[in-house]
Amino acid sequence: MAIVCFTSDFGLDDTWVGVCHATIVSACPAARVVDISHGIAPYDLRGGAIIASIASFQLPDAIHMVVVDPGVGSARRALCLRSRAGTVLLGPDNGVLVPAAQRGGGVEWAFELDTRGASPTFHARDVFSVTAGRLACGAAPADVGVEIDPESLVAGPFGLCERKDDQVIGEVLESDRFGSLRLNVPSENLDALGLSGDTLEIAIGHHTLKVPRGRTFSDVGEGEPVVVADSSGWLTLAVNQGSATDRYGISAGTRVVLRTSI
Amino acid sequence: MAIVCFTSDFGLDDTWVGVCHATIVSACPAARVVDISHGIAPYDLRGGAIIASIASFQLPDAIHMVVVDPGVGSARRALCLRSRAGTVLLGPDNGVLVPAAQRGGGVEWAFELDTRGASPTFHARDVFSVTAGRLACGAAPADVGVEIDPESLVAGPFGLCERKDDQVIGEVLESDRFGSLRLNVPSENLDALGLSGDTLEIAIGHHTLKVPRGRTFSDVGEGEPVVVADSSGWLTLAVNQGSATDRYGISAGTRVVLRTSI
Amino acid sequence: MAIVCFTSDFGLDDTWVGVCHATIVSACPAARVVDISHGIAPYDLRGGAIIASIASFQLPDAIHMVVVDPGVGSARRALCLRSRAGTVLLGPDNGVLVPAAQRGGGVEWAFELDTRGASPTFHARDVFSVTAGRLACGAAPADVGVEIDPESLVAGPFGLCERKDDQVIGEVLESDRFGSLRLNVPSENLDALGLSGDTLEIAIGHHTLKVPRGRTFSDVGEGEPVVVADSSGWLTLAVNQGSATDRYGISAGTRVVLRTSI
Repeated sequence: MAIVCFTSDFGLDDTWVGVCHATIVSACPAARVVDISHGIAPYDLRGGAIIASIASFQLPDAIHMVVVDPGVGSARRALCLRSRAGTVLLGPDNGVLVPAAQRGGGVEWAFELDTRGASPTFHARDVFSVTAGRLACGAAPADVGVEIDPESLVAGPFGLCERKDDQVIGEVLESDRFGSLRLNVPSENLDALGLSGDTLEIAIGHHTLKVPRGRTFSDVGEGEPVVVADSSGWLTLAVNQGSATDRYGISAGTRVVLRTSI
Repeated sequence: MAIVCFTSDFGLDDTWVGVCHATIVSACPAARVVDISHGIAPYDLRGGAIIASIASFQLPDAIHMVVVDPGVGSARRALCLRSRAGTVLLGPDNGVLVPAAQRGGGVEWAFELDTRGASPTFHARDVFSVTAGRLACGAAPADVGVEIDPESLVAGPFGLCERKDDQVIGEVLESDRFGSLRLNVPSENLDALGLSGDTLEIAIGHHTLKVPRGRTFSDVGEGEPVVVADSSGWLTLAVNQGSATDRYGISAGTRVVLRTSI
Repeated sequence: MAIVCFTSDFGLDDTWVGVCHATIVSACPAARVVDISHGIAPYDLRGGAIIASIASFQLPDAIHMVVVDPGVGSARRALCLRSRAGTVLLGPDNGVLVPAAQRGGGVEWAFELDTRGASPTFHARDVFSVTAGRLACGAAPADVGVEIDPESLVAGPFGLCERKDDQVIGEVLESDRFGSLRLNVPSENLDALGLSGDTLEIAIGHHTLKVPRGRTFSDVGEGEPVVVADSSGWLTLAVNQGSATDRYGISAGTRVVLRTSI
């Protein structure tokens, strides 16, 4: 059994998602198709890249198909990548796959998929779903495309945070459903970033906060802020049983500077 | 393996969709249930018929279960149809299945399903899901109902466009998530409708447009209109990386007149 | 084949639901995961408990995983319960499972799940999904936790209606997508509650109504109120092809008094 994870900006009200499901399982009846999110705003490469990076961080063994594709049918390439962590990613060459590959240690190899004969408006069905099904049933990358230079890929819509002396400079990737703010700070090795203290000093929007690090939201009192290395793989600023977004008036893209509080 | 495609006006917030899934796979563990859309507005026969026509056009080999059913439990009949293209359709006799059958060449046969013993408020579960499961596992139509005259079916909520001299007179079926306008013009044989030119003249709302035909949205510049035979099976007026709905202020039901531009 | 029903307040826009799906089928490839609802408002225990009670009433043989869990990672216990009707329920010890267990005749046994090693912010993945997969593939409750006293469970967010002489005093549980009002009155044995008449007198909000009992909505004229024992297992006040919520201006939590009309 292979799992195909599916992310798109298609929404759930039209036929696109279901048609792709049917196409994948028709190509490979043993595949299990898992919807990650189809709630990406139309054409929002950044939103798609965030969701894909979070999903692939948690499910590195799955095939991840990510379709946010304003240039569908144009000269933009259709891709199959593998990260050094072994995760297979399918989607257009517009940067939407790049952050997920970076979270998996970078691109190990890349193939360009053949799009001849596909509906020029629906590569999700005729190129990506068909390929996902073939890979799920054991096809090799050379069976589905032609190898290309990973250096030639279009850049991703955001990068990782940067360390500068005792500071880490990053940005808010997004606010989740519970109002928690995900930062572009990988959470698995905070020591290497100099963020090993029990309390972090965080400059964000008009606020400079001293926030305790917690294992979980409820390590602080109700309504209090906390920084956690949550399941997304990104460092997260949350408010226990509340919304950090509402509390601090912060939205995606806001610059953030962190350091260990002395 | 048989695929059961499921469309309804149930939304995803209540238990109905999940209960139907469980009922189908309990009746036939080999079935794969694919959600097409549950975002049809409550009681919106037209919206359900549009989605069902698009899904069945692309997935003619699946069983399509379409439940928009304001008269559930009343004397309205529960149906199993097959189109001439071989597509099996399950749903109430209120017209919601008819456009899908028309896109498949018309109704080949029709059976009325037995509703005795079913919860009178939940035929989706007790009649349509149970029948979908039985058909997916190989039951014949005569096992699930009694044959009826296709001529006796309630008419559909919309018909196909009509050709009048060099004009094609139709309507906007709907605006999709990306603001593209689907017209009730079948896209697979535009020559037969006299719409074979490279540019179409389209009278729609307060606008008369000369719009190039493209294979895909990006065949025109960003923000420019284009007419494509997209994957829905319906001719579609789109704006590349924009919204035709917003650009022209057009909504579902608007009359449209097309002809080849001279 | 075992069916795992999944309810949460996660929404469908983030990665959480898909990651849980993948975790369950990785733990047990034979499991079928059915989404009941992920549209519960964030932290809304009452909403989650209503949906879980309705789903488990209709699908008593499935494993029901219900995650509305503001205290995730805190000292609150993670539970596996079985109702006397045989339904297995997984979720946090905050009351969200209790109404479902009550609708199944009460708690037969309860186990506390081991949460060591789990991500403290994502027990849905590391505790509940893993356990659901193990149970779906045949594990016994003693394999997944330690038995605890059912009397020690946190109480549910609502109870059942109460009978007082010829009256039944209850509340509106919720308004569904179609505007129908579900009451906390179990619908399978109205005679025992003294509600066996053809017409009920219902005091609700500022209204006192005489409403006929129907088998289905269309047993009354369009726009007319009707009381039905619908598929949810809760007595429901509806308006045929309309919205009882809009008609009477009623929302969840409103007190309701019913009796047989003389």
